[in-house]
Amino acid sequence: MSTDKKTIILFSGDYDKAMAAFIIANGAAAMGDQVTMFFTFWGLDIIRKSKRVKTSGKSFLQNMFCRMMPRGPGKVGLSKMNFGGMGAPMMKILMKQQKAMSLDELIASAREQGVKFVACTMTMDMIGFRKEELLDDIEYMGVAAYLAEADEANVNLFI
Amino acid sequence: MSTDKKTIILFSGDYDKAMAAFIIANGAAAMGDQVTMFFTFWGLDIIRKSKRVKTSGKSFLQNMFCRMMPRGPGKVGLSKMNFGGMGAPMMKILMKQQKAMSLDELIASAREQGVKFVACTMTMDMIGFRKEELLDDIEYMGVAAYLAEADEANVNLFI
Amino acid sequence: MSTDKKTIILFSGDYDKAMAAFIIANGAAAMGDQVTMFFTFWGLDIIRKSKRVKTSGKSFLQNMFCRMMPRGPGKVGLSKMNFGGMGAPMMKILMKQQKAMSLDELIASAREQGVKFVACTMTMDMIGFRKEELLDDIEYMGVAAYLAEADEANVNLFI
Repeated sequence: MSTDKKTIILFSGDYDKAMAAFIIANGAAAMGDQVTMFFTFWGLDIIRKSKRVKTSGKSFLQNMFCRMMPRGPGKVGLSKMNFGGMGAPMMKILMKQQKAMSLDELIASAREQGVKFVACTMTMDMIGFRKEELLDDIEYMGVAAYLAEADEANVNLFI
Repeated sequence: MSTDKKTIILFSGDYDKAMAAFIIANGAAAMGDQVTMFFTFWGLDIIRKSKRVKTSGKSFLQNMFCRMMPRGPGKVGLSKMNFGGMGAPMMKILMKQQKAMSLDELIASAREQGVKFVACTMTMDMIGFRKEELLDDIEYMGVAAYLAEADEANVNLFI
Repeated sequence: MSTDKKTIILFSGDYDKAMAAFIIANGAAAMGDQVTMFFTFWGLDIIRKSKRVKTSGKSFLQNMFCRMMPRGPGKVGLSKMNFGGMGAPMMKILMKQQKAMSLDELIASAREQGVKFVACTMTMDMIGFRKEELLDDIEYMGVAAYLAEADEANVNLFI
């Protein structure tokens, strides 16, 4: 185990929880830590491309889930005070007023700093997400790979 | 501290969060880890027996909570995209189509693999759950026991 | 890293999740551990003073968020079974019937036991919370300070 490794499972697809996850990931990377983020279940929404990608071979239900699940940080809501969808836009204005980084910028910064992005293959198979629907140049793994990384890290969070 | 011990607090009573918890628990157990799962608050719903158990001595409010809280994995909903209760059934169909294990099967597998199930006695006392309403052959502990186990583990998640 | 240090990020502003966080914090402190709790996003609601504090210089949106976000444990709801706001009062009655500590008492006990309370400065700046609106004699830090503490702790939870 090493104090310079961290893992974060992002299960949640909420704007505010994703912000918290990326603020921690960026902070740790800035301090020289190796950070791995595992995107699973609704957390995959956060690393979806914003534009629709043509895919084939999905079942009826998979198509329905994929259509209804939001495409990327621009489309997700808040876990609280969502105000019928207005919560996230209002929080974005607050962040801009404070010159704080937006979620898009936090994601870009994490990638630049070498944070490892891993999409959960089990959720992808279940819901029917294809690799081309997610951000480019990320990795694809299952629970065994997560556990191997967590065993080497000293901070492991589930968000 | 040892790298072959893990603890998971399951606070949430959602189908999807419970799935994530049991997938991690099963994965770790398969890799030879000793895993302890603490079920607290709504997480106790996940280890409730599905059929109603006659009990006595509960207060009016306890009776009300116990009646309204879902009995086991067959009754709980999703944390997101619940579609008025249809979300969990749809996710179960998706899982079946992919030949993925259902939550019931994940729970059974965790038990077979020797994952330790612990029900939080404080929540049980508060809400009025009786031992006979929960799965058989589990353990009953409080926060001190949790902390003792977490101190020996290298991955401790709150889900 | 030491087995007598623990950190808890309280992101959630729900009564039940805050209870879980404070039960763990109090339990660990009673066993002699040094515990640090970081209050971020909605978790700041839990350490807000219950009476309104006059402040100035907030933007329109900040004022709106600050007005709508609950002031302290007496005002927050449950994450589940909230029954249109009646869930938390009912849970408080259940706790009283069982002579369990209320959230207010758990917070007071944590302070008496020397649990360190840290408010996230980034969230405060964003939403516009002023120090005088939060509990007295707490600390104010950012993500780097959290990571420094987490590096020294053996149990790090995100709630």
